[in-house]
Amino acid sequence: MSVESVVAHLKEREQDAVGRLVEWLSIPSIGTDPEFNAETRRAAEWARDRLREIGVDSELHETGSAAKPGHPIVWAHHPGPDSYDGPHVLFYGHYDVQPPDPIELWESPPFEPALHPAIPDGPGERVVARGAVDDKGQVATFLEALRAWKEAHGEVPFKVSILIEGEEESGSANLTQYLHDNADTLRQADFCLISDTGMLGRGKPAITYGVRGLVYTEVILHAADQDLHSGLWGGRCPNPISELTRVLSRLWDEDRRVTLPGFYDGVGQLPQTQRDAWNNLGIDSLASLAEIGLGPEANVGEDGFSAVEREWARPTCDVNGIWGGYQGAGAKTVIPAYAGAKVSFRLVDDQDPAVIVETFRRWLDEHTPPGCRWEFHDHSGGPPATADINARYVQSALRALKLAGGVEPALIKSGGSIPVVGLLKSILDLDTVLMGFGLEDDRVHSPNEKFELDCFRLGMNSHARLIAEFAGLE
Amino acid sequence: MSVESVVAHLKEREQDAVGRLVEWLSIPSIGTDPEFNAETRRAAEWARDRLREIGVDSELHETGSAAKPGHPIVWAHHPGPDSYDGPHVLFYGHYDVQPPDPIELWESPPFEPALHPAIPDGPGERVVARGAVDDKGQVATFLEALRAWKEAHGEVPFKVSILIEGEEESGSANLTQYLHDNADTLRQADFCLISDTGMLGRGKPAITYGVRGLVYTEVILHAADQDLHSGLWGGRCPNPISELTRVLSRLWDEDRRVTLPGFYDGVGQLPQTQRDAWNNLGIDSLASLAEIGLGPEANVGEDGFSAVEREWARPTCDVNGIWGGYQGAGAKTVIPAYAGAKVSFRLVDDQDPAVIVETFRRWLDEHTPPGCRWEFHDHSGGPPATADINARYVQSALRALKLAGGVEPALIKSGGSIPVVGLLKSILDLDTVLMGFGLEDDRVHSPNEKFELDCFRLGMNSHARLIAEFAGLE
Repeated sequence: MSVESVVAHLKEREQDAVGRLVEWLSIPSIGTDPEFNAETRRAAEWARDRLREIGVDSELHETGSAAKPGHPIVWAHHPGPDSYDGPHVLFYGHYDVQPPDPIELWESPPFEPALHPAIPDGPGERVVARGAVDDKGQVATFLEALRAWKEAHGEVPFKVSILIEGEEESGSANLTQYLHDNADTLRQADFCLISDTGMLGRGKPAITYGVRGLVYTEVILHAADQDLHSGLWGGRCPNPISELTRVLSRLWDEDRRVTLPGFYDGVGQLPQTQRDAWNNLGIDSLASLAEIGLGPEANVGEDGFSAVEREWARPTCDVNGIWGGYQGAGAKTVIPAYAGAKVSFRLVDDQDPAVIVETFRRWLDEHTPPGCRWEFHDHSGGPPATADINARYVQSALRALKLAGGVEPALIKSGGSIPVVGLLKSILDLDTVLMGFGLEDDRVHSPNEKFELDCFRLGMNSHARLIAEFAGLE
Repeated sequence: MSVESVVAHLKEREQDAVGRLVEWLSIPSIGTDPEFNAETRRAAEWARDRLREIGVDSELHETGSAAKPGHPIVWAHHPGPDSYDGPHVLFYGHYDVQPPDPIELWESPPFEPALHPAIPDGPGERVVARGAVDDKGQVATFLEALRAWKEAHGEVPFKVSILIEGEEESGSANLTQYLHDNADTLRQADFCLISDTGMLGRGKPAITYGVRGLVYTEVILHAADQDLHSGLWGGRCPNPISELTRVLSRLWDEDRRVTLPGFYDGVGQLPQTQRDAWNNLGIDSLASLAEIGLGPEANVGEDGFSAVEREWARPTCDVNGIWGGYQGAGAKTVIPAYAGAKVSFRLVDDQDPAVIVETFRRWLDEHTPPGCRWEFHDHSGGPPATADINARYVQSALRALKLAGGVEPALIKSGGSIPVVGLLKSILDLDTVLMGFGLEDDRVHSPNEKFELDCFRLGMNSHARLIAEFAGLE
């Protein structure tokens, strides 16, 4: 068995692979919207059937309860040849997609995938559809690699378990329970492989070896038991909006460090070698700012760290939403009964989400404005996770990616949080390698989401070569 | 003609008066919301028609421009008998009402007036509806007094001009122009009478001789030109919500004084005699707080002043609304493109709204967070105003109120802002006496706004007696 013949097969049958992707993308699996429950299940069945077609045992596992059913998990297991002595890989992906709103901004219908040619100074040849890159298109690169091995050589030559969930875009509500319920089975895997991240840039393949953790809370500050007239009450009672702004503003000091006591306790020193490696990646943070309409003066963040260091290695706190009082047109002179905010923390290293939640809650209590009281909700999140870049499977992925892409791949981290990565680590002690093929301009979660065919090809070839690495085949 | 027979007539026909009020309150004249433009006009027509019914010449005066039409002003003039030699009174009121949100907190629909019986230790017999006390119900006490004079004696026995506007709750945008355009006519009045304020308490009638001024602005802080993923961008670009809270929190110092440069320049010293007079009114500020669900620890405000002094004699700054990012259920990890707030200032003495607006705008510019820019809107307001308590019409009002209420009325000020009071003074040199009948628990601008029938009765009787004062009738 030769991997080159598998790659040749992928090239020859590329139109079929694209056709299958288009078919999957046509199913509006908007998991978060109950109106699309049937379609969401259909997208799961589609994946199960494609796996069965290539001889991989696959079934749907129901989730949730009878009272509150979840979306099924596509589960598959393939033992590989008897002679296989490589790692047992757990592949994770998701078949649900974000809602397409605002629908009017789509240039073609989100669930009628459109194939576009490359445009000068713009995107390459690409498929435009909701889910194109997040995550159906990327999962498809893995499924197509399995299929190519099967078609070119008669069998999928490695040991793999596959878990494709349908609730990633709505918070993976049932995944934790599933991981606990199936811990004995899942623990047999050696590591997890995920394709749901991006490259360093066009033509710059990358392995993501760590993600930040997340704590996401909602805080509501209550004052009077009713809305008040600001003329009659202004200046003689607590205004929960004014007070909330005063409290929230104290979350950061002048150096933009988070002021929660002990917040940085679990944060490790960033080794100079690490800083050097990242700074040598050629990331142009000012160019990134320019792409979102910001000048160099917007390059703000924690003192003493570069933009990439802030994103990958430093914790942070953001207010993701705020509300209170009158938000309509014109004037309303009200002092509202309450004001609220969504406050999140991105975590790194050994920061523990549960500890941070408790610290924040205590800090709020200590900063309660006179006459006010807090309402607090924890919307959960996940721990940070970082894989050892010297681990065998990370090195395998680097080699496969280099062979497929023809250039030295980058080792990067992500400032985002992929809860499953932390859950796999904390529940099953599994490390994760993220081999993703997205580009920064892919419009993830936005109208006109796309996946470039160059990236799709690179994904299929990389996965095909990674399978060869595992199986010790050349 | 005897005022006692007019008062008797009012008592006899009270159900009719309440019925008319209910009819007016049923018209959702939410002037600030263009969707209610037709209803707002209908409320104006309703008042015009009621005036015509009692032989008072009345018409609608259009406001604004063809491009940006305003709500009509109900204008009426009645010369009174030839023999009349009392003051020419200008009565001002407004027929527009605040938006009813949050609608879900209303116990009965805001525009389906509900009549409730008195409850022990609670409100008296009352009508619950948006606008019940602010200001339709109070305007109705004046209209019903006119009607009672007409019905009981065949004529309205004094010289009165009436101006009922439809933009009070949205900043009286077109009133200034209207006052300028009609200055010659309006200047013929001797003073202005308004019923849009409150009593000192249940059974404690009061004349209000001064109001605070108002500046109402909207500030929007823009950062990136698109919403961002807080995982990828958190900690390395400006978050407009976090930045907005930091800037707004600097509007007050630790003593809760406003930090705008020169803000207190126009604020006079509060004379000890004034402080003594107010402190002798027996106002229980802690009891007021208890009525809105707050304990004594909520008695906060500018250092060195009592609650009543803060409300009547001290300027203040409030955030009346704030918004940005995700406000829905659960979590969305977004850094929004912008965040905004409604920020208002209450003014006293010689503070000039135009100067404060400019000072605030400059202050914002000086506090622009790196990489951000401000969008600024002035929703206008009005200057503060105080009348001479020894003026003839103030004394007439005190006598009428004493006769109607059976107790010595109090002389008070209001922390609220009635822009027209300042405009009448600055444009037409007209002083204003505010004879209002609201109670502190009337839920002005809040859900379940009410007007107690005792207050409605007192208002009708007081106006009937005030008319007798003017006409020299007993």
